Order: sequence, then C-alpha cells, then structure tokens
Amino acid sequence: MTTSSLLPNFLGGQWQTGTGEGTPLFDPVLGTELARVSSAGLDLAAGFRFAREQGGRALRALSYGERAGLLAAIVKVLQAHREAYGEIATANSGTTAKDSAVDIDGGIFTLGFYAKQGESLGGAHALLDGERIRMGKDPVFQTQHVLQPTHGVALFINAFNFPSWGLWEKAAPALLSGVPVIIKPATATAWLTQRMVKDVIDANILPVGALSVVCGSSAGLMDQLQPFDVVSFTGSADTAAIIRSHPAVACAGVRCNIEADSLNSALLDPAATADSEAFNLLVSEVVREMTVKSGQKCTAIRRVFVPRALYDAAAQAIGAKLTKISVGNPRNESVRMGSLVSQAQKASVLEGIAKLRTEAEVLFDGSGVALVDADAAVAACVAPTLLGAREPAKAKVLHEVEVFGPVATLMAYDSIEEAYELIRRGEGSLVCSVYSADPAFTAGAALALGSAHGRVHAISPDVAASQTGHGNVMPMSLHGGPGRAGGGEELGGLRALGFYHRRSAVQASSAALDALAASAVALKY
Amino acid sequence: MTTSSLLPNFLGGQWQTGTGEGTPLFDPVLGTELARVSSAGLDLAAGFRFAREQGGRALRALSYGERAGLLAAIVKVLQAHREAYGEIATANSGTTAKDSAVDIDGGIFTLGFYAKQGESLGGAHALLDGERIRMGKDPVFQTQHVLQPTHGVALFINAFNFPSWGLWEKAAPALLSGVPVIIKPATATAWLTQRMVKDVIDANILPVGALSVVCGSSAGLMDQLQPFDVVSFTGSADTAAIIRSHPAVACAGVRCNIEADSLNSALLDPAATADSEAFNLLVSEVVREMTVKSGQKCTAIRRVFVPRALYDAAAQAIGAKLTKISVGNPRNESVRMGSLVSQAQKASVLEGIAKLRTEAEVLFDGSGVALVDADAAVAACVAPTLLGAREPAKAKVLHEVEVFGPVATLMAYDSIEEAYELIRRGEGSLVCSVYSADPAFTAGAALALGSAHGRVHAISPDVAASQTGHGNVMPMSLHGGPGRAGGGEELGGLRALGFYHRRSAVQASSAALDALAASAVALKY
Repeated sequence: MTTSSLLPNFLGGQWQTGTGEGTPLFDPVLGTELARVSSAGLDLAAGFRFAREQGGRALRALSYGERAGLLAAIVKVLQAHREAYGEIATANSGTTAKDSAVDIDGGIFTLGFYAKQGESLGGAHALLDGERIRMGKDPVFQTQHVLQPTHGVALFINAFNFPSWGLWEKAAPALLSGVPVIIKPATATAWLTQRMVKDVIDANILPVGALSVVCGSSAGLMDQLQPFDVVSFTGSADTAAIIRSHPAVACAGVRCNIEADSLNSALLDPAATADSEAFNLLVSEVVREMTVKSGQKCTAIRRVFVPRALYDAAAQAIGAKLTKISVGNPRNESVRMGSLVSQAQKASVLEGIAKLRTEAEVLFDGSGVALVDADAAVAACVAPTLLGAREPAKAKVLHEVEVFGPVATLMAYDSIEEAYELIRRGEGSLVCSVYSADPAFTAGAALALGSAHGRVHAISPDVAASQTGHGNVMPMSLHGGPGRAGGGEELGGLRALGFYHRRSAVQASSAALDALAASAVALKY
Repeated sequence: MTTSSLLPNFLGGQWQTGTGEGTPLFDPVLGTELARVSSAGLDLAAGFRFAREQGGRALRALSYGERAGLLAAIVKVLQAHREAYGEIATANSGTTAKDSAVDIDGGIFTLGFYAKQGESLGGAHALLDGERIRMGKDPVFQTQHVLQPTHGVALFINAFNFPSWGLWEKAAPALLSGVPVIIKPATATAWLTQRMVKDVIDANILPVGALSVVCGSSAGLMDQLQPFDVVSFTGSADTAAIIRSHPAVACAGVRCNIEADSLNSALLDPAATADSEAFNLLVSEVVREMTVKSGQKCTAIRRVFVPRALYDAAAQAIGAKLTKISVGNPRNESVRMGSLVSQAQKASVLEGIAKLRTEAEVLFDGSGVALVDADAAVAACVAPTLLGAREPAKAKVLHEVEVFGPVATLMAYDSIEEAYELIRRGEGSLVCSVYSADPAFTAGAALALGSAHGRVHAISPDVAASQTGHGNVMPMSLHGGPGRAGGGEELGGLRALGFYHRRSAVQASSAALDALAASAVALKY
C-alpha cells in the first residue's frame, strides 16, 4: 500500500496542507488507502478571524435574496460534479449508488429548498418575528421582535455517515442567514466533503471566507470560538458532552446545537392485524430503515413496537424480507447493501449486537450471510440482524444503546400506554413512526409521543405512496430531538435560520419601527 | 442576637424543615437576623419525582385556558398579601417602597399578563407552530409543527435581586405550559419567595406538586434532573459555567436557560447637543438606572456612550442629579435609595469600583455621602458612583466587569461605528438603550446592535412619557442576551412557552392532522 497525498484544507481564504503524515482514509470494502488528512500546523486563530471578519462582513452585506442566489449557484456546481461524488462515495463510504444518492442528492435537494425559501425573503437584511405589540395605553411606544444574523462563524463538527447532506443541511441555512461556515468533517469520510467544498471554492461563487474546510483532528477548533460564534455538532453523546463542557460553551456562552444518540421507534396500532395494510407498511419500513446506508442513519428505526399478538408474525415477515438483502461490494449491481464506513464501525456494531443480545433473542441472524464480491476478512460489511424482546419493560440496554448499523429490535407491548412508556425510555429520540389506518389513533399517538421526539412520522394506507420515509430528513420538517438525541433543532424550513440569528426586542416609537421595517421582512413558517 | 427559626421548604407535596442550624438571612440595613434556611436532609429525589409525576400529570390534564385561570387565582392571592410582601422586602432586601414594588408588583403584573395571554389559548392541550406544509406533490401527506409541554420539571435557581419577579416571570410561562416548578431562591433574600409560595400553597389553588420551594443550599438539585426536565438559572457567569458543565446538561441533554452577567449600554445619538431633549432623556434614564434598586438590576445601564464633545456636559448633568439622591434606611421617607442586599454584595461592589477605577476617572464620588438614618458600619449602603473613560477603546475591565450596584461608566466616542464596536465589546448584553430624535438613526442603531442584545430600548422625545424604562423588563418583550449575558431567552409574550414545550414535526395524512388540530390551537405572537 502506497501512502496517498494529503487533502488540502481551505482556511483563511487559501488552500493549506497540514503538516505531518496525516491520517489515512480507506475504502471500507477493498481496504485500500484513498487519501490522507491533516490539520496540523494550521493557524486556526487567523483562519477563524478571517472567516468571522472578512466572510461575515461580506455575507451580511448581501440580502437574503442575494444569498439565496448563492445557494442556487452552489446547487448548479454540485450537480455538474454529481458523477465524481458518486465515485468518491462508493470508494470512501462503501455505499451502493442508491445509498450514496441519499447523501449526495439529499444535500443538493436541501440546498435547493433553502435557495427557494430564501428567494421569498427578497432584499431584506433582517427578519421581523411576530407582530408589533403596544407596550401601554399609548400606541406610540411599541415592541417589535427582530431576528438578525449573528456576527460570528458557524463551526460544524460533523458525522461520518453524511459527508454531503450533513454539510449542506447545516450550511444552507447558515449561509442564507449571512453566517460564514467552517466545516470539520469526520475523518473516515472527509474526502467527499472536502471535494464538494473545493468545487464550490473553485467556482468562485461565495465571498472569500464564507466557506472553509478543515480536515483531520478537531483539536483546537473549539478554542477559537468567541461569544457570537455558534457550533453545531453531530455525533456521539460522549463527544457532545465534551463540546458542551468546553469553556467556549460553558463559560463564553457560545450557542451550541447537538444531534447525538437516538433510539428511534416504530409503533404499530394495537388494532392492527397481521393481514392489515398497517402491518405490511410497518414491515416494509422497518426493512428499509435497517438496510438503507447499512443502517448508518441517526434517524433509522432501532426499536419496533408491535402488539404482543403480532410479535411472531412481525418477526417472520421482517425476517423473510431480510433474507433477500444481498450484502457486499457496492460496485456489483446485484448488491443491495454495501459496507459500513470503516473497520472501526464494523467492530463497534458487532460489539453493540453482542450487548443487545444480553437482553434480546436473535430473530434474524445476519452473521452467517455470505458476502457478494467482497472478502469478509477485509470488507467492513455487516449483514442485517433482527433481535427481539418479548418483555421489553425488563430491558435496559435495549433502550439505551444505539447500535449504528443494520440492527433493530422487535418488542412486544400489551397496552398502548405501555408502548408509549417504553418508547419514552429512549429518553428523547429524533423520530418515531406510527402505523395505523385510524386518523384518531394517529393523532393521539402524535400528541402522546411528540414531546419526546423531534418528529413523528405517521404512515397510513392513504399516504403509502406519498409518505417520505421514516428515516428521510425533509428540509421542511424539524430535525432533532430532546434529551439523549441532543436537544438540537435543525431544518424545519425557515425555523433553521433561528440558530444563526439573534432575537432582539426593539422597543421604540412607531416612527422608528416603521424605519426599521423598511429593511426587514416578516418571517413566516 | 437570637437564632431565628428555619423557613420550611415545600417539596414532595408537604412542608418539610431542613436539618441543622441553617444559614441566616439578615436585614441589610439594621444587621439583624430575620430567619434561617436549610435544605439539608430533604429527600430531593422523592421530591423531584413527586413534582414530575404528580404535579406534571395534573397540570397537563388541564387546558391552557384552565391553567391561565390558575395564574389569575395566584394573582388574587398575592394581591391580598401585598402589604406583608412590602414589609419583608424592606426588612430583607433593604429597598424603599418604590424599589420593592418593582420586584413585587412586577411579579404580579407578569403573572396577570400570562393569565390573560393564556386565556386566549382556550381549551387546547397543544400548540400548532406555523402552517401545515405539503411534503410533495400529493397534498395528502403534510407536515405540521406542534409544541407540546415537556414531561418533566422546571428547576429555577434564582438570583437575590428579584425574589418575587424572578420567581413569577419564570413560573407563569412554566405553569401555563403545564410544567411543574421547583424554585430555589438565592439564600440572601429567600424569605419573600418562600412566603409567596406559602401563600399560594395555603390557598390550595394549584394541583399538589405543581409548585415547590427549596431554600438553602443548591447542593444536589442538579443531580435530580432527567432528560425531559429543564433548568433556568439567573446569576453569575461562574455559577452558570458550573451548571452548563453539570452531567445533567452536558451528558443527559437537559435543556438549560441562563441569564448571567451583562454590561448594558446607553447610546446617545452623535447628532445630539447638550441642550437637546435626547441628551436630557439620556441623563434622566442613566440616573434612574443607577439608583433604582441601588443598581442591583441585571438590566441596569453600566456603560454610557456619548459623543466626545458631550462627555463633560454629560458628566456634569448626571453628577448634578446624583447629588440629590439620599441614601440610607428605606423606612425613612426622605430616603430615595436603600441598601444593597447584603454585606457580601457591598464588599463586592466596592471591590468592583476599585477594579473599574484602574481604567476610569471618578466623575461623581459616592464614597463620602452621609447615610440617612443608618449606621455606615452596619448598613450595606453604597451611594452612587459615576466613573468616566475618555479613551474607552483602550479599556478592558470596563467592558468586562459588571459591578452590581449603583455604578456606571461614562464613555466618549468619536464615530458611531466606534460606538457600535465598543458596545459589542460587552460580548453580548441584555439591553442597550438609544437616545435620539431621529427615527432613521434609531432604526439603524437597532439593526447594528440587535444581534448583540436581547433588547434595544429606543427613547425619543415622542415616547418620553410612554416609554417603559431601559431596565424594566416587560413581559411582552424578550428578556435575555447572547454571549456573556448567558444566551437565554425569557418572556417575549407567548415565546416564553417555547422553553417549556418540545417542538415536533408531525408528518401525517391530512385526516390525521385534522384530528390532531381538534385538540390544539395556533400559536401567534
């Protein structure tokens, strides 16, 4: 194996290669080295200052509509290089073409969505939040809440599973808000992020300093943050705790958004039968969620709740579909599911399955599945595994340990109240899906589960064809979840702009508020 | 001095007296001991569980309108005991009747405001956030964002300066949201908080477990918090850092609102002259802010920015008014300003003045002012002190150290851009006030300063009579500020409910969303 070259970083308005040997990126199927990354030796302080001052000033000088135009231009650049991204994803993420598209096209779609949303904000430089309210009997003195872009940088410390979407779903609202972005991709799959940023920089679309990329170690990044900066992290709860405890957040009050662990659930209506459409919809969705991107989605279904009477039927139906999932080299067209992103992830998933098995039975065992076109000793492939718990109330690990791979656990419940209680044992999750033909049940479930989830996805027969998928994060809906899921809020249409803006109550005369309104636009959801 | 009795705590649905000798509360003017507090020996885990389970379930069973009715009933109870509260405030806070009213009546007014706001939400149990949005071409599948009360407790760790308002400005939106409250008042002035809670509990208005009070040490309180709980802290940046770093927040994702240090500013229009009304309005407001509650307001003006040409005139005009401020025993009707809340605060303020003086000149020296009806060796009285900096760009401490007493620093600026830059050196503040007769200047200043402040308060001649005061926190406007100010958001009308609710995107069929809408109401600001 030869040593590959270092991917350059873009910081301080210039391309800079880190020092040292760097950390290698691998093809998780073939085991070959693809590239190396290093952030060693970079002048981070100067880079952050440059982004904050040059990038921020230039972006804020533009209106929302003008910045929306920049997003639209980025979409065009990325579309032009679409093929290269697919090749990088296959090589570095080990994903099939379909799974790569979830990441790549998902990112481009989200950018396009915000380009369109931003266009509607036109020539404004601030957002009016709500109505003007009078402060007393005399209407001359009123209060108007206004949102304005923060004068700082947005640091993104991202996860390995979405090198494209993870960048753009955060960068689109940040750039639209007028806040410069510094992206630190997860090392294992940093290549695609770096390449996309490179294409956008090369296309000379953005003001210099508006978009920077630092690949390699995250050491020292948090130390650069100042009170008006923000940081958005996606990854493990352990790293999240380190970020939240860092002096920038704990002492300087840097605003922090976290998306961490999540044990998402699927819930079947207690009135469903084994031959009902709701049952079939649940089975299909569970199989899809277990296998798309080899289950490496923070939104994937981890716990499947069915009425006790349907436990065996569900185990059988899900298992029957899982037997048809071919696993192996994503370059082989017969392969339905590629590999995990790394050997480290493979080891982590196998360890996680072993943990869950201390409390669960194995309903579908993927450990013996033969790989297609891949060497089991080299490839980071793990076939789907369905576990089961007939008494989930007695389980602890099953509600606490997120295994980030093609793994889910079927759980039996006796009453709907028990199901709600068990689902809440996840202590805050990103998404729960509900399968029912009864709108009243669905509404009740949404109200019972909503406060523990950032999203409730309800699948009924009438939306079978149009529903967008349990695990797909759509830009018009909130992405995030309370508690264990990190407490963050991303996307949700223009709600996403809130994180990059500061809300201020302007208490002033009607004349002054009229003058202010001339350069602002009302924010509507 | 005899040992006073321990104030009982209300926790777990019962009055419980802590063990040990407790910590004494003093009259800061007379130096006498008033009462003692202790939380030692309380079963905090059982108390929090009781509030979370009993209190939370009972509150959530009510509609917003019903809970608004509870707030209105609390208003009546507090009004009935108004006189007793005034006496406690005089004795324990050392405030004049007028200053006590800012705290006591401010709290009651805020409760009444939320009672009225909540009434408009009627019989609903959830809030609809924004419009329904279709997820694709087929309109049958849509997303609707919904806010629902979190299934947890709200722990308030409060500051000594507002034992009444500080409780009710947080408790009103929490209780209206259906979230039970556990209040831990600052020890120095805990008596008024404890007494108000006692009156409300005795009146048997709230479901048991909805409101608890723990006086004394905060040791162990944070350890009780679980993922769906929230904590709201008002106090020093140092304690804020400890709270943010606590495992409940850093690891379990407990939602956390902080209001900490703030170096609020006042800014005079560069076009103002010494005989302009804007100039006079600034002078009056600065004096008012320095002296109300002896400057012990987190919103008080700390830095006063005037054009260089008006520096001397402003120093003279403010100083002339400060000479008329009589300081001493608040029981004496000729006294305009009472004492600080404690000897500890007096020492802290004197130490703070010494720090500021390393970078500032003394424009009005309060250190020699004779006290009225009070013994300078015993009373925690500090007369107003106006400092000045002709070259504030060279200062550091002046922009970083909040002296929590009757102290402000006058600063000269040369250009409005320099003034904006200097104001931002506060690194995030609660409020900035702007004094100008020109609506266009005011609007520009609001846009330049809004992202660094939770509130911009603009005073112009036409609102001189109706403006609500730089430092007064009105419930319809946001209270909070970025960075050093803690990054929190309180009040702002119904926006305050957001902290106690969880936002969830419900993606479902139109039929299911119709069913959900039947028990919800649209949230409007």
